[in-house]
Formats: sequence, C-alpha cells, structure tokens
Amino acid sequence: MPSHTPDEFVAVAFDGDELVYLDQRLLPHALERKRARTVDEIEAAIQTLAVRGAPAIGIFGAYGVALLRDAIANDEEFAAAARRVRDARPTAVNLAWAVDRVLAAADMHAEAQAIHREQIAIDAAIADAGLDLIPKGARILTHCNTGPLATAGGGTALGVIIAAQRAGKSPHVFVDETRPLLQGGRLTYFELADAGVDATLQVDAAAALAMARKHIDVVIVGADRIARNGDTANKIGTYGLAINAAHHGIPLYVAAPRSTFDFSLDSGASIHIEERAAREVTGFGEVPVAPADAHVYNPAFDVTPGHLITAFVTEYGVIRPPYHETIPSLELRPNASVLFS
Amino acid sequence: MPSHTPDEFVAVAFDGDELVYLDQRLLPHALERKRARTVDEIEAAIQTLAVRGAPAIGIFGAYGVALLRDAIANDEEFAAAARRVRDARPTAVNLAWAVDRVLAAADMHAEAQAIHREQIAIDAAIADAGLDLIPKGARILTHCNTGPLATAGGGTALGVIIAAQRAGKSPHVFVDETRPLLQGGRLTYFELADAGVDATLQVDAAAALAMARKHIDVVIVGADRIARNGDTANKIGTYGLAINAAHHGIPLYVAAPRSTFDFSLDSGASIHIEERAAREVTGFGEVPVAPADAHVYNPAFDVTPGHLITAFVTEYGVIRPPYHETIPSLELRPNASVLFS
Repeated sequence: MPSHTPDEFVAVAFDGDELVYLDQRLLPHALERKRARTVDEIEAAIQTLAVRGAPAIGIFGAYGVALLRDAIANDEEFAAAARRVRDARPTAVNLAWAVDRVLAAADMHAEAQAIHREQIAIDAAIADAGLDLIPKGARILTHCNTGPLATAGGGTALGVIIAAQRAGKSPHVFVDETRPLLQGGRLTYFELADAGVDATLQVDAAAALAMARKHIDVVIVGADRIARNGDTANKIGTYGLAINAAHHGIPLYVAAPRSTFDFSLDSGASIHIEERAAREVTGFGEVPVAPADAHVYNPAFDVTPGHLITAFVTEYGVIRPPYHETIPSLELRPNASVLFS
Repeated sequence: MPSHTPDEFVAVAFDGDELVYLDQRLLPHALERKRARTVDEIEAAIQTLAVRGAPAIGIFGAYGVALLRDAIANDEEFAAAARRVRDARPTAVNLAWAVDRVLAAADMHAEAQAIHREQIAIDAAIADAGLDLIPKGARILTHCNTGPLATAGGGTALGVIIAAQRAGKSPHVFVDETRPLLQGGRLTYFELADAGVDATLQVDAAAALAMARKHIDVVIVGADRIARNGDTANKIGTYGLAINAAHHGIPLYVAAPRSTFDFSLDSGASIHIEERAAREVTGFGEVPVAPADAHVYNPAFDVTPGHLITAFVTEYGVIRPPYHETIPSLELRPNASVLFS
C-alpha cells in the first residue's frame, strides 16, 4: 500500500477553481486525485462512485452547483445542470438537501463551504455521542464504508469507532467486505488500519457466524435515508445484518447526521431503491465472475425497519425508540448551521 | 460461454487408468478437463476446489484411493496416502465416508464405481422426494452450488429445482453469488441456464431484500454435514440465510443424501469449521480487492441450527422435526447400496 500524507487523503475539496476529489474506485491500491469542472464531470464522479458516501456526495454536489453557477450564465441552463447534479443518485437524501441549500443561498460558494465545515463539526459530535455505546474491548461489526472518505469529515459509524480507539477502548472491528463494490475491503479496512484500529476482513455472508462464534458486542452502520418511523435505507446487506443482530441479541446502531433524516417520509415503504448495473456483479475489474449475459438483481440499498434498530447516533445525541416520537422531535431542534457553524 | 456436450460436462470420471475431472475453478469461462494420478495430484484437486461439492469429493476420493492402491505396493505407504486423501478437506463428511467404504471393500475399484452409481440413483430419488415441496411458479432462493457439478450425479438442491422445471412448474431461481469463491455466479447460474431454468444472480447480501420484496416462496440449499439434531454445516452464509428465512416466514429446505448425516454427532457444536486462505477474500484472480496483508476471517462453512430448518430432503423422502427422533430413525433404514445398486 502506498504511504500517504493526510492531505492526499481528503475525499473532496474545492481549490477555488475546480473540484478536487480522490477517485475511491482505485483505493487502496492507488491514491489518485482527480478534477471536475463541468456538469458532465461532476455527475459522472457521483454516478461512477468515484465520489461516494451520502455526506461526501452532498458536499461534492454543493461545491459543484456553486461552481456551475459561475460557469453557466443562462438561468434555465444552470437550473437544468443543478437538477442533473441533484438527481445523480436517487437514494441518498443528503445530495438533494445540500444542492437545495446552496441554490437558496445568496453566496453559493460560502454556503457550500459552510456545509463542508458543518459536516466536520457534525461528525465530531456524532463520534462524541456514540462513544458511550462502545464498551472497552468491544468486538464491533460494520458494513460498507462510513469513514472520512464517506463524509469528507471524520466519518459517522467509523468516526464513532475511531473515537473509541482514541479513547483507549481498543475495539476490534469485523469488516464486511460489502459486495458488489467492496467498500469494506477497499476503504474501511484501509481507514481502520490508518487509524491504528485492529480489524478483520470477512465476506458479507460470514457475518452471522461471526455473531455466533466471535462474540460480536455491537453492530454499527451508517445510513443513506431515514424515515420518521426509523426505517433506514443503507447499503445492501444492512437489512439482513439487522435481522441477524436481533436474532443474536446484539444491539444495532445507525450513526448518521440529521441531514440523513427525511422528515417528509412516514416510513421506508416509499424509499426508491436504486438498482445498479449488472456488470458490478458479473465481473470484478477485468475478471468475469459470472456469465456476462446473466440476469442480475443488483439493488444498491435495502431498507431496515426501525424496530430492528436499537438507536440512532446523531450530532444531537443518541435517539431511541419510540421513533415515531423521538425522530419528529429531532426535526424541531435548531439545525446544524446554527449549532456548528 | 463456450458450448459443450453433456459428456464434457461430467464433474468426475475414472477412465480405467487415471482420474479425469473438470477444473471447476475455470468455469463458466473454460471447460477444461484435467487428470490426476498421484496422491499429490488427488489431494491438490480437492484442496484447491478444482473438484468440489461434498458428494463429488467423496466419489473423487473413492476413485482416487482405489487408483493409489494399484500404484503403491507398500501397505504403510498406501495407508498414509489414503489418509491424506481422506483428510484433504475436513468439513464434508462424504469424503471420509467414501474413502472408508472403499478401504473396507475387497474390490476397491468396484466399490468406487458403486458409490458413483449409487450417487446418481440417490440424486434422482432426492429430486423426486423434493418435487412436492416446490409450488408451481415458485420463486426459489439458493446458495452455493448443489447441481451435477457438485455431486457427479443429478445434484441435490439444484436437482430438486431442475426436476421441478422438468415437471412443468417453471420455477424462478434467485442465485446467491456465494463469496468468496462465487460458486453461485460461476456454477449454479450456468447449470440452471443449461437446464432452461429462469434464474437471477444476486450478491449474497441482497438475499434479505429479495425475501422481502421479490416474494421468495422457498429457500433450498445443500449440506456438508448434518448432526442428529438437524444442525447443518453448509457453505458460509447458509446460517444467516436461515435466520432471514425464518424472519420472513419462508420455509428452508436442506437437500442431502443420507451419507451427509453424521450419526455420531449429537449436535453441530463440535463440527470443525474449515478456515481457508486469506487470499480468497483479499483478491479475486489477479485483481486485489483489499490490502494484501489484511487480517481475514474466512470460514468456509457455518452451522445452521436444526430448529431453523423446515425439513430435509433425502433419498428416503422428506424428514421433518422433531429431528432428534426422525434423523436417528434414518440411520436404521437400509443403506443406499441395498436400495439403489
């Protein structure tokens, strides 16, 4: 693995002229910074998952729309471009939320920077709120990637784990590799090693056996969209993991900022599940792993019912059931731009 | 995919001089027949999973030991070689069972052929017994590979599915790709397509969502070792799948011949779980998918408690709970060499 400086390791940045991002598809084997300036480039970076993670996508989209406003004089043309960025991925709520916030601001660049700055503060507050949920020496299971690469801040679920490590709790983390795109093996294991956290990589299908025989104490994951009753869209596999955790009596925590809660949704029933290309499953890189013409079901997300989630860890503290009361009350709290800017 | 004749598609055969096998690691992209003659070659074919599937390994080991008896005059040397074949993989009970049976026979070659012939008859009886469990138009979920490639006969779980197709029930099968070695994508999808069965490939972590949103009617899998109380060792992921099936009220059937039942085991607690090399998880073919030095948990199997299994489908019919009564009574039935030879 190439060595790196923290500066090279930043998911998303704006250099005053162009968007700069780490192409996460190449990790952990290459740290390659790329640039985006046009709506085509911005949309492609999001759709190809070069930039990924709900909060990081939001920040990227926010900077992107501010950049496009400078470049596109015609209002209608700009509105169409902003809409393309806003809709580049359908499941993550942060992208639409961040783009809308920038569009409503007088100074779009300042607003995008504020969203980014707030995310860093929010992630720190989430890590702080989650610390008490992690016992000393805890054996933790996590899925997908929820670290600095995913948020362009300190991370959500992984931020909690890294905070526990810094607090001397010495957690041991079992990392689901997270097919099809293997964010666990490529990104999470890498980030944990970087933070000095003991980690073990496993295939997703080993999670139930790990719960039964490796004495998992806690499951902690991130989220892409959360409804008012606690139903949570997250990376495919989270739902099965939640059923398995409940079966073993293991608490399942979802760490996510308030911007991931979609207060307009009563439940997860209406969350649109993005289905991605068959080739993510039929091949890996240049290696075919199934017939190229195979019929494939490739949902990027699933929806975990709120009743399978022990608690949510937010920048406003830990939110417990009954969610139909506690989540709506979250909507009434002052928003992050007041609290954290 | 290259076209093939049925003859090229035989998992294991003995040509009177050498063992001939299909190298299943290369499927579905190449149909390559290889030969084994020495104990090193036989052991390697099993350990590298070139030959795989509990019944097929048993048949391969049976032919292999008979072949080694001809080649090795010294009794002690032969006994050591036979032990290496018998122990080449620890979890599948069929291998030890078949080798022991050949070693006890007067004519070892005839005994190996009898085991193979019986397997073909047993698989046909399993398919017949399972047919009533598959509703017309059933949506079936399966894991790993349990077809002709796995048994050197007609298959166990996949044999039931293919029989349902031939009986005009038009099942639709959701195939777990089955990480780390992707037997679902490489072998099962291929065998189903070959048999004209509608199939959809998915990552293992999509199984719970498929149960919730794709209206799965039945889960059916194979087994590597079954204890007297129904606890079942099978490909990693089966245990989590069984918990998910129970959560959704979907029946889970295990199709396996009597030789897979280990009547010496009261429960699955003492089943040794084979852990395989880290590189199966950290890379795929030449493509690295995680840091090469990552610490990996790579159990090949897990153990599903009997209480999560709706029924077993055997060559003696469908076996239902209470397993501590019905499985021991299976031991008392006349064995396959009487019934099927």
